[in-house]
Amino acid sequence: MNQSAINFEDKFRQFEDQWQPRIIAEANNYRFKLAKIQGSVSWHSHTDKDEVFIVMDGSMIIKLRAGEVELNSGEMFVVKRGVEHSPYAENECRLLLVEPANLKTVGSPDGVPVTVEDVWI
Amino acid sequence: MNQSAINFEDKFRQFEDQWQPRIIAEANNYRFKLAKIQGSVSWHSHTDKDEVFIVMDGSMIIKLRAGEVELNSGEMFVVKRGVEHSPYAENECRLLLVEPANLKTVGSPDGVPVTVEDVWI
Repeated sequence: MNQSAINFEDKFRQFEDQWQPRIIAEANNYRFKLAKIQGSVSWHSHTDKDEVFIVMDGSMIIKLRAGEVELNSGEMFVVKRGVEHSPYAENECRLLLVEPANLKTVGSPDGVPVTVEDVWI
Repeated sequence: MNQSAINFEDKFRQFEDQWQPRIIAEANNYRFKLAKIQGSVSWHSHTDKDEVFIVMDGSMIIKLRAGEVELNSGEMFVVKRGVEHSPYAENECRLLLVEPANLKTVGSPDGVPVTVEDVWI
């Protein structure tokens, strides 16, 4: 058991690449990940998970067919499974994600959602 | 589906009582809760969950048999199931908790862990 606090700023300093979440903790059957995003990901939906966005720094927009949700630092939003959405950030936005441990994260720097292997930091 | 962001500050303003987490969101099989704590809870462990502490404002100490973990704003810690711990905050500390949806939260203002029903805000 790691006996020290996990500091978000320390962890964010450990990676530069956008749309590539890093795992920082696991509890029960879910994982905590940090991500840096900028630009947009094409419209898509997830059949296997509700997607959680918690903004730690910056701001982003989650486009939904029913409208847009603006998220600023200290705000969160849950995109329920099956709901089409397109995340967008004009400037780099830093996120905390909480995802089922058995799933990989879908994201892409060029607009096409892809499945990537997340790594621990 | 709620189409607006969940703002942590707005939610914290909606309750005063300490050691009484409020549910603000649910995703997959876990719930996001906010809590205000001050003082300490006696030594205990949870057999049914890893316990997640994310400090949003203030600071706290999680006493473990193996030592103490100090948590400040922007830091998190996971107490694995079965691990004895005693949370403590000298001044009011504001937390984000992420818990399995089927569990109730254990907490107490007077040092004895009790099971309480969390409510949505």
